[in-house]
Amino acid sequence: MLASSPMRVVDLIRRKRDSGELSAEEIKFLIDGYTHAQIPDYQMAAWLMAAWIRGLSAAELAALTEAMLHSGKVLDWSDLPGHKVDKHSTGGVGDKTSMIIAPIAAAGGLVVPMISGRGLGHTGGTLDKLESISGFNVNLSLAKFHEALVKVGCGLIGQTEEIAPADKKIYALRDVTGTVDNPFLICASIMSKKLAEGIDALVLDVKTGSGAFMKKDSDAEYLAGLMVETGKRMGKKVVALITDMNQPLGRTAGNAMEIAECIEVLGGRGPSDLRELCIELSAWMFFLGERTANVADGRKLAGEMITSGRARDKFRQIIAQQGGDARVVDEPQRLPQARAKLDVTSSAAGFISAIECERLGIACGVLGGGREKKEDAIDPAVGLEFHCRLGDKIESGARLVTLHYNSDARLSEARQLVESSYIVAAKPPAPRPLIHKIIGA
Amino acid sequence: MLASSPMRVVDLIRRKRDSGELSAEEIKFLIDGYTHAQIPDYQMAAWLMAAWIRGLSAAELAALTEAMLHSGKVLDWSDLPGHKVDKHSTGGVGDKTSMIIAPIAAAGGLVVPMISGRGLGHTGGTLDKLESISGFNVNLSLAKFHEALVKVGCGLIGQTEEIAPADKKIYALRDVTGTVDNPFLICASIMSKKLAEGIDALVLDVKTGSGAFMKKDSDAEYLAGLMVETGKRMGKKVVALITDMNQPLGRTAGNAMEIAECIEVLGGRGPSDLRELCIELSAWMFFLGERTANVADGRKLAGEMITSGRARDKFRQIIAQQGGDARVVDEPQRLPQARAKLDVTSSAAGFISAIECERLGIACGVLGGGREKKEDAIDPAVGLEFHCRLGDKIESGARLVTLHYNSDARLSEARQLVESSYIVAAKPPAPRPLIHKIIGA
Repeated sequence: MLASSPMRVVDLIRRKRDSGELSAEEIKFLIDGYTHAQIPDYQMAAWLMAAWIRGLSAAELAALTEAMLHSGKVLDWSDLPGHKVDKHSTGGVGDKTSMIIAPIAAAGGLVVPMISGRGLGHTGGTLDKLESISGFNVNLSLAKFHEALVKVGCGLIGQTEEIAPADKKIYALRDVTGTVDNPFLICASIMSKKLAEGIDALVLDVKTGSGAFMKKDSDAEYLAGLMVETGKRMGKKVVALITDMNQPLGRTAGNAMEIAECIEVLGGRGPSDLRELCIELSAWMFFLGERTANVADGRKLAGEMITSGRARDKFRQIIAQQGGDARVVDEPQRLPQARAKLDVTSSAAGFISAIECERLGIACGVLGGGREKKEDAIDPAVGLEFHCRLGDKIESGARLVTLHYNSDARLSEARQLVESSYIVAAKPPAPRPLIHKIIGA
Repeated sequence: MLASSPMRVVDLIRRKRDSGELSAEEIKFLIDGYTHAQIPDYQMAAWLMAAWIRGLSAAELAALTEAMLHSGKVLDWSDLPGHKVDKHSTGGVGDKTSMIIAPIAAAGGLVVPMISGRGLGHTGGTLDKLESISGFNVNLSLAKFHEALVKVGCGLIGQTEEIAPADKKIYALRDVTGTVDNPFLICASIMSKKLAEGIDALVLDVKTGSGAFMKKDSDAEYLAGLMVETGKRMGKKVVALITDMNQPLGRTAGNAMEIAECIEVLGGRGPSDLRELCIELSAWMFFLGERTANVADGRKLAGEMITSGRARDKFRQIIAQQGGDARVVDEPQRLPQARAKLDVTSSAAGFISAIECERLGIACGVLGGGREKKEDAIDPAVGLEFHCRLGDKIESGARLVTLHYNSDARLSEARQLVESSYIVAAKPPAPRPLIHKIIGA
């Protein structure tokens, strides 16, 4: 292809460089050529940088998403009754909603084919959390994934080689060429993978704040708008909730500790912020998946799935279906436990006025609970237990966070990160809603 | 290097992407790493695109030029008496001044270590022109180059592997990543090569107009300013002449035909525009090389070198020194001649009001006189003979151009290109000076 038209790729690079627009056909040529190694890394890198700086039009973004989506298999569950609905979060600290929402939605009659990622940087990943359950296999074949959907209405797996291979290859290139943090490229990456799942509807949880990738509401809303628009252009029902990530979600960050917290929520207990967000996201899934006539009814249905114990039963089924030890649902002490704990206390008295939430995520990684490089192994048992929330009144010497750890190699680093994350002031901050905005409703 | 600091290159890419400035040390790290294949093509491509779009500061540009210059050998002729001075042109159609200026300057007592390029696209190249002289070897070793400078005061060679290897590698990458036509990157490329020649002074001929790479005066002046500033920062005397390229320079375009035209000028004849520009460029070389107290005296000295026949003698010596058949200077019919000719005539009567000069260069290439791809072979004999200049009054049916060709495979394409290059109007255009401006004087 290149041999016969050596100028073509350069022309597409130059056009984007000069703020021009590419046709859908040209974008497909670029993505297909790159996926099949007919276009080299260096040309794609130049194009990605031009796109990072110049941006993409709505039509270009839809074409890019579509080309990436069709670079591999697009799953098709039309043989299964019921609407196929998923949720995707842009990631944060203590963000563990998938393990609660997937059982609620599946228990409520939706089919949930959820393809998730691993933690990287300061954020955790659904796959890592699930793997803290002994035996849980996130690498199902597509046949086994189908079987899981038929039998229990839900499957939780990682990205396979077959699904959106263009995204996998492009993401690896973006990672080393300074082209990661761009709303257009993030949108295409997320939406191509999610739409390849063969879903009818998608609820997006776009995080904003000190623990999110988007620190500013305006950036989060912009990304959310792009994703909703792109999904709708492709005939899917999509809604995005802009949710607060200025403090950790719930009371823990750390893989096994978060699973335990999810089990609490599924048991009708657990922290109210986590429960509220899970109910809200599930409600939108029920509404978009046509299980309820409106979101309020969706909330009711989600609540019933918890109080009736049906969501908890579903989580047991999901775990068992994927080879995991379902006894953890009733005996969470079976989850990996760290050998030692250390309390981090406040040196000042007053109100918690701000939390450098990203730093808390990094502290969790420093203890061994996250990765700095893709190859790093993680320790499922370690993590952070949070005792205070924004606006809490605190005495000097009171506990802020308890570190759960197995090695003290980087313990003092983690402690310093945590200590420096909390700002204590004389007055409480203005209260902030958990859900800032809903886009695409 | 990369293994121990994987983030560093990405940080430099991100900084330039965000319009930030890199230190000289960081730029050196980037260029050295790329030259020694420790930084991969895709990272350099992303950085180049960011630099293309965001630009470079004066300090960054000097650091880039210096890093590229020191990526290989920097030649040193301090054992030779006399000032080492070179001329560089940004390229045009019929631009053949090197073969006239180098003999004039060397005859006038300067040392001229000239490293030139080949034709690409619509422009010709000095090396290709010289190779139309039977036996002329442009691939001298550095030892033989030195010997030529000692014996005849001038050497005309191509870029070697030893000189500015970073430029060679970066240029090849720019060519395929849409990052060629940028003043900062062009400046670093030209100046790193030229300063690696071990010269004391440099006269730049920056072309502007329909046959130049810079179509607009403002772009040409901007590039000239960057090159003068960069050269001066490195302690060299540099001046740039902005010269007109809205029509071919002289009466021919085509490798052997241009050598014949140079011999005419060295013999005191030839077209006045070519002669004037060569005198002017040589005059600046003499002045910067401290052979004359001012440019006016430089003009006088250049004129004397022609009228005395000393420049012509010098050209014979240069040819002989590099293994070529020096008899061509007295018997230009020994140069390759095309087998056939075709006149292209005007279909209208009036004044030549504009010439699409780039198209004439492409027509020359179509006849076989230039390259579309680097691998293409060229035919030294073919070319275009121009009968009209801007402002000339022309009758319908009168000759515009005579095509000299060996194959009629693409003859009609060449003829159409030539026909469509000339605009004939009722009134003559406003006269335009050959030298628009002098920068750095």
